Amino acid sequence: MSTLLRQQIEKITPLTDGEFEYILSHFTSRKFKKHQFLVQEKETVPNDFFVLSGCLKAYHVDQDGKEHILQFALSDWWITDYNAYFNQTEATINVDCIEDSEVLCLSLYHREKLCAEMHKIEHFFRKKSNAGYIALQQRILSTLNNNPKERYEKLLQLYPSLFQKVPKKLIASYLGVSRETLSRFSS
Amino acid sequence: MSTLLRQQIEKITPLTDGEFEYILSHFTSRKFKKHQFLVQEKETVPNDFFVLSGCLKAYHVDQDGKEHILQFALSDWWITDYNAYFNQTEATINVDCIEDSEVLCLSLYHREKLCAEMHKIEHFFRKKSNAGYIALQQRILSTLNNNPKERYEKLLQLYPSLFQKVPKKLIASYLGVSRETLSRFSS
Repeated sequence: MSTLLRQQIEKITPLTDGEFEYILSHFTSRKFKKHQFLVQEKETVPNDFFVLSGCLKAYHVDQDGKEHILQFALSDWWITDYNAYFNQTEATINVDCIEDSEVLCLSLYHREKLCAEMHKIEHFFRKKSNAGYIALQQRILSTLNNNPKERYEKLLQLYPSLFQKVPKKLIASYLGVSRETLSRFSS
Repeated sequence: MSTLLRQQIEKITPLTDGEFEYILSHFTSRKFKKHQFLVQEKETVPNDFFVLSGCLKAYHVDQDGKEHILQFALSDWWITDYNAYFNQTEATINVDCIEDSEVLCLSLYHREKLCAEMHKIEHFFRKKSNAGYIALQQRILSTLNNNPKERYEKLLQLYPSLFQKVPKKLIASYLGVSRETLSRFSS
């Protein structure tokens, strides 16, 4: 399954078998059960996670106990609390499993080591970070425009596989609308 | 004034005089007047902009003609339509000047050339992109939590200089609240 990671890197830069093996040796593989936490608020965040299989969510719980979903992740996606990970601070969000999941863990130390040793991996992570930045900017724009129906349709169009795995109430939380509002345009 | 750029890069990686001159030779300097556009919706976006002086805003205009502010930029900040810039597509946002501004322009071709030639510049831009990603994620979280007063106070705390340059109605647009709401907790 680690070929998923190789394929993702090779969309941006070619690798020899030896290079990929070396890169992979910096990751550790882990399995998590449905509902299990990978990142928990107030704790440190040693790892970024590349998803091999399953489905996860990153979310914040507000003062009233309401969950706000920041991000989903399916196979071939990355997920963690990036603020806490990059700045080595306490987590302010949680990441847990919507279903059983298998991930490759990359510590910040190993990420920085790989980037320093291999220019092409620094290039890969710069490109991924740029793409992530754009995706968040698009999300902010769609929130500002604040048309939940359009946002729902765009999400469905971009990530049809999400809708097979993720319960509607979580999609509603991601879009920042009530479940009733969602059901008006998703039936 | 280009020392601002050097200082920013050197916060992440040291440069020799020769290296910085080489990097700077890939930028062009431009001055813009208050209200002048740097990026305009539906047009191509050849450049990313490093702000030397002045104050700019990036915003989207919705179907009802309402402006939604995505980002401000003061000196030492970067601004453009990153989706259009990186993917070489049409702009979906505008960038214009809140006051007379001077910027350094970096085309995508020159950015990629510098990153390919100089590992340390690829490293610099990866770090900047990570920081930008985190800032957007924090913004999304604060929007989801949806407490305009807290968001206003955090903005004031993070960027006190914004409040000297930016009219209140633009701050309100950035926070996604009415001017009346803003004036309730900003007086």
